[in-house]
Amino acid sequence: MHENKNYIVSHPRDPKFLSLRSLQNPSGRHRTGLYIIEGIRHVARAVEHCAAIQSVFFDPSVLSSSFGRKLLQKLRKSGVSMIQLSHQLYKDLTIAAEPQGIGAVLRQQWVAIENLRPASDSFWLVLESIDSPGNLGTIIRTAEATGISGIFIIGAYPDPWDPAAVRATMGSLFSQRLARCSAREFGEWAKAHDVTVVGSSPEGLLEYTGLRYRWPLALVVGSEKHGLSEQLIEVSDFMVRIPMVGRVDSINATVAAGVLLYEMFNQRRRIAG
Amino acid sequence: MHENKNYIVSHPRDPKFLSLRSLQNPSGRHRTGLYIIEGIRHVARAVEHCAAIQSVFFDPSVLSSSFGRKLLQKLRKSGVSMIQLSHQLYKDLTIAAEPQGIGAVLRQQWVAIENLRPASDSFWLVLESIDSPGNLGTIIRTAEATGISGIFIIGAYPDPWDPAAVRATMGSLFSQRLARCSAREFGEWAKAHDVTVVGSSPEGLLEYTGLRYRWPLALVVGSEKHGLSEQLIEVSDFMVRIPMVGRVDSINATVAAGVLLYEMFNQRRRIAG
Repeated sequence: MHENKNYIVSHPRDPKFLSLRSLQNPSGRHRTGLYIIEGIRHVARAVEHCAAIQSVFFDPSVLSSSFGRKLLQKLRKSGVSMIQLSHQLYKDLTIAAEPQGIGAVLRQQWVAIENLRPASDSFWLVLESIDSPGNLGTIIRTAEATGISGIFIIGAYPDPWDPAAVRATMGSLFSQRLARCSAREFGEWAKAHDVTVVGSSPEGLLEYTGLRYRWPLALVVGSEKHGLSEQLIEVSDFMVRIPMVGRVDSINATVAAGVLLYEMFNQRRRIAG
Repeated sequence: MHENKNYIVSHPRDPKFLSLRSLQNPSGRHRTGLYIIEGIRHVARAVEHCAAIQSVFFDPSVLSSSFGRKLLQKLRKSGVSMIQLSHQLYKDLTIAAEPQGIGAVLRQQWVAIENLRPASDSFWLVLESIDSPGNLGTIIRTAEATGISGIFIIGAYPDPWDPAAVRATMGSLFSQRLARCSAREFGEWAKAHDVTVVGSSPEGLLEYTGLRYRWPLALVVGSEKHGLSEQLIEVSDFMVRIPMVGRVDSINATVAAGVLLYEMFNQRRRIAG
């Protein structure tokens, strides 16, 4: 199809709009291997990280910042396919509280588990059944801040390419190596590469600060509601718990992951420094 | 008005429904000094903590768990005012993803700042302009887990009695002492009681683990977007930062608060133990 620079997608049944919208659903993302990002900051980060941008969608009536307009210009020049949406369709598509008038379609970047080779001081994160895409994204953001080498996602959910997850990563998704695998596959990988596996649970025998961690290390975090599966508990060399006082019996999953990641990160820096 | 046990509130203009719904808005909560909690767990915790329950609202067609029904029975016997809602009105009112058919109206519990007298080992949290009610609630939950003595909320927002905040506290709100005041009032309180004030900022000179904290201690946390106000920075004795690697320049506000609270909590236990 000849691409007309001035063509505006305005019909809700336009195939271009339908394919954008399909990426908001797990099935559409799974079928195509693509996902959507939104907002100037996210698109700029994707460009910085040379992420595989398939197309850019935009609404000039919303894209008012001059930085945003320059970014769009730059992408247009680089030959990326451009989709201009009508104001209504952009509104229908966006999940942002304050839409910025620009987004992009990217190729999901999965790494095969056999290509993840842990360096002697490397630090890995394993996520199982995190309750919401937003929580998953927030944990990925903390993982980036604490120098995680890669993230294993156990089972079919959660989906790190869900728009709410992508949003919560605040652009830290592009630099992460993500692998999807089963608990058994992860266990075999950890064993083969002599990676210490630390699980967290309210029933853990040791407090998380009571252990001198050994590297390479993998931290395993499960859902707030159901904790870790039996399989991942078996794979773990140690189970640690986060102490709590007061009448609470748990803390938020993203906070718990952050507290554990920072303790390990701090110990790792002390050894390195 | 005579209370008819079998009366069902079903009209959207029924004054009982209107007054319940008004508590979902800041103005309604402010005017009445009341707030709403929802769900079996939250109502049960409110009962445990002898919170000031004004009335209970419920929808028997949703309240299927036997624990929930017993709880309702117990509250009815204790003489609390009961509001049975039609299925439609309960649906209109609830913000829960999986409504459980029971909720309650409670009196907000504010403590006057002059009534907060810090013990020598006490630990306080000061919150300024937290971005969302959900984040505020999550931070209050972590505060409870780390043994915070009380929470100062600076300025008119955020509102800890917002339904989304209450929900995220997971029932830990009832045992917290909350005071609303200005930055100046907090500063005077801290000075009068010789409380060490620690602020957090990406520009902090010290890493948060590099300080041996002195008690009584207050941790000051600001918004993810705008950080702390000049006034609160001035009140702070130390400014600490959370180190980060990778290409992220910030982590989620609830995660940051959790990481700081746990470091202080751990140091405090080490001294006590």
